[in-house]
Amino acid sequence: MKIKVGVVGGYGTIGKRVADAVTLQDDMELVGIVGPGFDWRAALMAKRGVKIYLAPNARIEEFKRHNYEPAGTLEDLLRKVDVVVDATPEGVGEKNKEIYDRFGVKAVFEGGEDHKLTNVSFVAARNYKESLNKKYTRVVSCNTTAISRVVGAIHERIGVKKAIISIFRRAADPWESHKKGIINTVVPELEIPSHHGPDAQTVIKDLDIITMAAKGSHNLYHLHMGFLELKEKATKEQVIKALEEEPRVVLVSGKDRIEALNSIFEIGRDLGRPRGDVYEIPVWLESISIIHNNDLTLIWATPEESDVIPENIDAIRALMGVETGASKSIEKTDKALKVLKRFY
Amino acid sequence: MKIKVGVVGGYGTIGKRVADAVTLQDDMELVGIVGPGFDWRAALMAKRGVKIYLAPNARIEEFKRHNYEPAGTLEDLLRKVDVVVDATPEGVGEKNKEIYDRFGVKAVFEGGEDHKLTNVSFVAARNYKESLNKKYTRVVSCNTTAISRVVGAIHERIGVKKAIISIFRRAADPWESHKKGIINTVVPELEIPSHHGPDAQTVIKDLDIITMAAKGSHNLYHLHMGFLELKEKATKEQVIKALEEEPRVVLVSGKDRIEALNSIFEIGRDLGRPRGDVYEIPVWLESISIIHNNDLTLIWATPEESDVIPENIDAIRALMGVETGASKSIEKTDKALKVLKRFY
Amino acid sequence: MKIKVGVVGGYGTIGKRVADAVTLQDDMELVGIVGPGFDWRAALMAKRGVKIYLAPNARIEEFKRHNYEPAGTLEDLLRKVDVVVDATPEGVGEKNKEIYDRFGVKAVFEGGEDHKLTNVSFVAARNYKESLNKKYTRVVSCNTTAISRVVGAIHERIGVKKAIISIFRRAADPWESHKKGIINTVVPELEIPSHHGPDAQTVIKDLDIITMAAKGSHNLYHLHMGFLELKEKATKEQVIKALEEEPRVVLVSGKDRIEALNSIFEIGRDLGRPRGDVYEIPVWLESISIIHNNDLTLIWATPEESDVIPENIDAIRALMGVETGASKSIEKTDKALKVLKRFY
Amino acid sequence: MKIKVGVVGGYGTIGKRVADAVTLQDDMELVGIVGPGFDWRAALMAKRGVKIYLAPNARIEEFKRHNYEPAGTLEDLLRKVDVVVDATPEGVGEKNKEIYDRFGVKAVFEGGEDHKLTNVSFVAARNYKESLNKKYTRVVSCNTTAISRVVGAIHERIGVKKAIISIFRRAADPWESHKKGIINTVVPELEIPSHHGPDAQTVIKDLDIITMAAKGSHNLYHLHMGFLELKEKATKEQVIKALEEEPRVVLVSGKDRIEALNSIFEIGRDLGRPRGDVYEIPVWLESISIIHNNDLTLIWATPEESDVIPENIDAIRALMGVETGASKSIEKTDKALKVLKRFY
Repeated sequence: MKIKVGVVGGYGTIGKRVADAVTLQDDMELVGIVGPGFDWRAALMAKRGVKIYLAPNARIEEFKRHNYEPAGTLEDLLRKVDVVVDATPEGVGEKNKEIYDRFGVKAVFEGGEDHKLTNVSFVAARNYKESLNKKYTRVVSCNTTAISRVVGAIHERIGVKKAIISIFRRAADPWESHKKGIINTVVPELEIPSHHGPDAQTVIKDLDIITMAAKGSHNLYHLHMGFLELKEKATKEQVIKALEEEPRVVLVSGKDRIEALNSIFEIGRDLGRPRGDVYEIPVWLESISIIHNNDLTLIWATPEESDVIPENIDAIRALMGVETGASKSIEKTDKALKVLKRFY
Repeated sequence: MKIKVGVVGGYGTIGKRVADAVTLQDDMELVGIVGPGFDWRAALMAKRGVKIYLAPNARIEEFKRHNYEPAGTLEDLLRKVDVVVDATPEGVGEKNKEIYDRFGVKAVFEGGEDHKLTNVSFVAARNYKESLNKKYTRVVSCNTTAISRVVGAIHERIGVKKAIISIFRRAADPWESHKKGIINTVVPELEIPSHHGPDAQTVIKDLDIITMAAKGSHNLYHLHMGFLELKEKATKEQVIKALEEEPRVVLVSGKDRIEALNSIFEIGRDLGRPRGDVYEIPVWLESISIIHNNDLTLIWATPEESDVIPENIDAIRALMGVETGASKSIEKTDKALKVLKRFY
Repeated sequence: MKIKVGVVGGYGTIGKRVADAVTLQDDMELVGIVGPGFDWRAALMAKRGVKIYLAPNARIEEFKRHNYEPAGTLEDLLRKVDVVVDATPEGVGEKNKEIYDRFGVKAVFEGGEDHKLTNVSFVAARNYKESLNKKYTRVVSCNTTAISRVVGAIHERIGVKKAIISIFRRAADPWESHKKGIINTVVPELEIPSHHGPDAQTVIKDLDIITMAAKGSHNLYHLHMGFLELKEKATKEQVIKALEEEPRVVLVSGKDRIEALNSIFEIGRDLGRPRGDVYEIPVWLESISIIHNNDLTLIWATPEESDVIPENIDAIRALMGVETGASKSIEKTDKALKVLKRFY
Repeated sequence: MKIKVGVVGGYGTIGKRVADAVTLQDDMELVGIVGPGFDWRAALMAKRGVKIYLAPNARIEEFKRHNYEPAGTLEDLLRKVDVVVDATPEGVGEKNKEIYDRFGVKAVFEGGEDHKLTNVSFVAARNYKESLNKKYTRVVSCNTTAISRVVGAIHERIGVKKAIISIFRRAADPWESHKKGIINTVVPELEIPSHHGPDAQTVIKDLDIITMAAKGSHNLYHLHMGFLELKEKATKEQVIKALEEEPRVVLVSGKDRIEALNSIFEIGRDLGRPRGDVYEIPVWLESISIIHNNDLTLIWATPEESDVIPENIDAIRALMGVETGASKSIEKTDKALKVLKRFY
C-alpha cells in the first residue's frame, strides 16, 4: 500500500517540487496540496490534476475569482494522509504542528523551522536512522544539506578536524525576484558563525565548523568555498574518491567549460529535468586542492531550489519506517528522480 | 519518408533547441549536428545519442580530450541530409552558405544573418508561402518574431497605421552570462530606428514601424512596449480577439500575479517544458489600452532563447514543400511542441 | 536678508541633497533638518554641523544611543524658518502639511505627493510663475522633471503634437539597494499610461503625452526613450538648438564613448560633483533622429537622485517671491551648483 | 623642490585618481599624464588643465577628432619627470619599463604587473622601507592591499598562525560595466590558492595565508571574509585595538545601519570625497568574533577603485627617498587626501 502524502505550502519553491517528486515514487501517493490562495502557480498545479485544499485563513476570494472549487480544508486533507511535508514559509510550520499533532499525522518540516521544533534534523546519507519511525523530522536548509553532503562525505571517510565555509548566497529565488531582491551590492551576515554551522551540527554532531555568509546580487544557486583542516594527511585522489562515493554529489570541471553557477543551471536545463532542477551538489574538480599537508580546499554550487527535494522523499520513508536504512531509500529516490553521479 | 535534417551550430542557444524540436516531429529525422568543439554542452548532446559532426576548423583537440569520435565532417553530414538549420554565430552562416550551395542542401538561416543572404525572411503566421520550395530562408530574430506575431496579428485583423516599439533587451543569454554581460547599467542603441523595425518589414512589407532598443542588466527575456496607432477606432475586445486568434501568442494577467519577466520564466519551468522554454509571446492583458480613439498600447515578453524554435520547424517544411499552407504546419509543430493558447 | 530654510526628511536621497544645495546659495540659510531617527546618514550630517530636529514620532532611542542631542522638534524648527522643503517618503508630506499650515510656514513638496495636495506643480523652466508667492508648491518627480525639460523644450520651441515616452526605470536607489530591489528581471507597470504622463500635464497643460514604464535590474538612473510627433516638419539641427537653449539639458555623444548610464554616472564622479551628482538631463546626440517628416526620436538619462535638486532651490525662490521670473533664479541656482551646458 | 610626477595610463580607474591625488600633495607636482587615445575621460582631464602626452601607438585620430593638441609624447614627458606611476592595463607596464629604464626615470607599477618585474612590492604600513631609494616598486592590487592592512595589522600586533580569506569580487569597475560584466551568476576562481595569497606574501613574508576568490554580479567593492587562526589567545578588544591603530582601516557597524557594500559606497559619496572614493578598508565591528580560543573571524569591504591611491603616493616618496620612514609619509598623504580613522 502506498504512503499517502500531503504537501502543505504546496506551490512554493520547495512545496511544488516535493509534490512532483512524490508523484514519481512508486511507494507514495500525492493526496493533495494545501495553499493559502490561488494565483498562476496554483492554477498550473490544478490544471495538472493536483487537488488543492485550503490553508487556515486562506484567501477564499482568490479561489472564487478563479472559479476553483477547493478539495476541502487542511483538516480534510489531514484525515486522508499518513504524512505531510510542510513547506510553508518560516515560522508557519511551527503553528501548523499543533494541528498535525491533533490529527496524529506525521510531518516533515523544512530548514526554515527551528531544530527544536522536531529535535531531530535530517540529511539522508548522514543520519537517516535518527528519524526512523519518529512522528516528526526536519530536512535542513539547502545550504546545510550541501555542507552535510560534501563536508560530511569527507568527514566520514577521511576525517575533518575543522571546517571553515564561506557562503556566497543568492539573494532571492527566481520566481519572486521581482518583489524581493538586492541590486549591485553584497550583504554580509554580520553575526559569525552564521546559522549554517550550528545547523550542520544538528546532523553531524562531531563536526567542528565555522560558517560565514553574504548575499550576492544574483538569484540562482549559492556558492560555497570550503577550507577543511583534515585530521590527517590525505591526497587529492582520496578526496575525489570520497566525493565519488557520496550520493547526490557530482564532480564538474572547468576544463569542460563548466565555469560558473550559470553553467550548472544550464546543465540542469539541458538534462531535461523538470524546471531544470539540479538535485546534486556539483563540486569543482580543479578547486580540490591539498595545500601544505592537511589543508583541503574545495568549491561547490548549492542549487537552492532543489537539492533538498530527494531528502524530503527519504525523510517521508524514514518517518513511515518503510525503509530502515538510508541506502535503500536513497537508491529508490535517486532512481525515480534520475539523480546522477556524473552529468555526462 | 521523413525529412532528413542537420543542425549546424547544434549546441548553441538556438541550435540545441532546434535539434530537440526536430526530434519531436513525426515528419522529420535528426541526422546529426555540427559543432566547432567539444565541451559539456556537446557531451550532453552526445550522451543523448545525437551524432556530432566536425565544423570546418573544428577544435579537434577538444574532441580527442573527451575521447569523442566525431561522426564525420560537415561535408559528410551534408551528403546525408535534405536541409540544414544553420544556427551558427552571426556571420558564420554567410560563409557556410557557399558549402550548402556546393552540396545542393537547402538551409534555414537565423536572424543574425542579413536578409540579403536569402532575400526571403520567415515568420510562419505571416509569410509562410514566400519560402515555399525555396532553397534558402531566414527565420528572423527573437525580437522581430515577437513583433511580427503581436503587431502582425493586429495589423492583419484591425490595421496598424504606425507602430512605435521600445525594446528593453536582455544583455546576454543565461548560459554565457559569466563571460558576456553588463552590470548595473542600461545600454541604449543610439542609432534609431534600431534594426528590428526594418527587419520586421522584411516579413510584413506594409508595416510602418519605428523601433528603439536598450540593453538591460538581466539575462532572461526581452520586454517590448508597444504603441500602435490604429487605422481606425477599435475596442480593447477587438484587440484581445485578434491576439487570441493568433497562434503562439498568449494572454497573461497581473491579476493572477504574473507580474514580471521572471514570472513568465517560472511558468515555463512549471509547465514542464524542456529547459523551461516558452515558445509563445505572452502579452499582458492589463497593458492593452485604447487611449483616445485609435491609440493602442500593449506590453509583451519575448523569450529570446525559444520563441523562434517553432518557426524554424515550419521553415523546414516550407523549404521542403511538404505543407503548402502555414496553418497546417503551425498546427503540427505546435502539437509536437505543446505550444499553448492559454498557460492554464 | 537670507531665506531661512528647513528640510524635512533631511537625510533621505533628496533631502540631504537639497540641504547641501541650500547651503551653497547666497540668498538662503539652512536652519536645520528634520529626521525620524539617527543612523550613519544622520551622523554624517551632524558631523558637518547641520542641526537635526525631531520628526513627530521620531525614534528617540536612536538619538540617545548615538549621544546626539537634537536641536529641538519639528515645531521648534518651524518657528525659525520661512519655508521648508518636505522630502519625506510618499504620503508623509500630506500629513505634515497640516502642521505647516498651523505654523504658517511655506512648503515645497516632492513628486511622491499628489498634485492635488498643492494644486500647483513645478518645473522652473516651464511654469515658475505659477508658484510665485504661493504658500505651497510641488516639485514633480525625477522622471516628470526630465520629461518636462526635454519634451517641454521641444514643445515650447517647435511644437509637439503627441509624445510617446518609454521609461526604463532603476529599481531602487543605491543607498537602499540592499533592502529593496529586484534581480534579473524587468517589471512592467501594467496600467498604461503610467502616472508620469498625467503628471507632466500638471506642468505642461497642453501636452498630449502617453508614458509607459518598466523597472529594470539596476540602481542608477532611469533611461527614457522618446518618440515625438512634431506639429510640423523640423530638422535635427532645430531640435539640437532647442535642447541647447534649454537649461539643465546637456548633449552627449556615443562618439566620445559616452555609451550607457554608467558612463554618465562616471562623468558625474569625474566632474568632482558632490556625490557624483548629475543635475542635467543628458540627451544622446546620435539618438536624435527625424524619421519621415515629423517624427522625432531621442533617448536621455534621468539621474533620479539629483535632477530635481536645482528645481527645489528655484521653487523656494518662487514661493518666497524673491525672484519673479524663472531665468534669474535658474541662473543663480545653476551658478551655485555648477550646472553645466556642456560636460566638457 | 617638488617631486615631478607623470602618470602613464592617466585616465583609467587608478590613473586618474593617482593624478588627482598627486595634485593634492604639497611636495609633488603633476607634470602630465599619458594616454592611448582621447574620449570623454581624457576631455574631462584636459578641461581641468591636466596636460596629456601620447602613449606609444596612441590613436592619434581621436586626439585630432577632438581638436586636442597633445603636450608631446611619452618620451617628452619622461624628460621632464622624476618618477612615473604606471597605471596601464595588465602587461603594458612590463613593456613600458624598458622605456623608463632608457630614460632613467623611476616608476611605480600597479598590482596587475608581476612581482618579478620589480622584485619589490609595496604596502606603506607594512614594508615602506623595502622600496626606499629603489628605481622601481609595485603597489599591490586592491585586494592584496586590503589583506595587507587588515590581516597585517593583526599579524604585526597579535600574530597570525594561518589566514584563510574568501574574496567575493566585483566583476567589473563601474565605468566599464557596459562592456565587461557578468549577469546573475557567480564565477569561482578554480585554482586555489588564488593569486592574492602569494601576492600578500610578497609584502608580509612570514604570513601563512590561503585565499579563495569568486566574482559576483556587482560592480562596486570586493567583500572579504577572513578566518584567522591566531598564534595565541586574544580578545575581541585586542583585535579592535589593533585595527584602530592601523592607518587606512576604519571600523563600521551594522547597528548604525552600515549593512552592505552599497552603504559604504554611499558613505564615500556623503563624505564629499572626489568620486565618492573610499581610501580606507571598512571592517565590520560585529563580524569580529573570537570563536573557541584562537580563531578570529572578520569581514571587510575593499573599495577596488581607490584603496591603493594613498599607497601610490607613499610609494612615490619611498622611491624618491624624501621620507625615510612610513609613518611620516602616511601622515602627509592621509592629511592631503582626508583619510579618516572614523567615518563620523
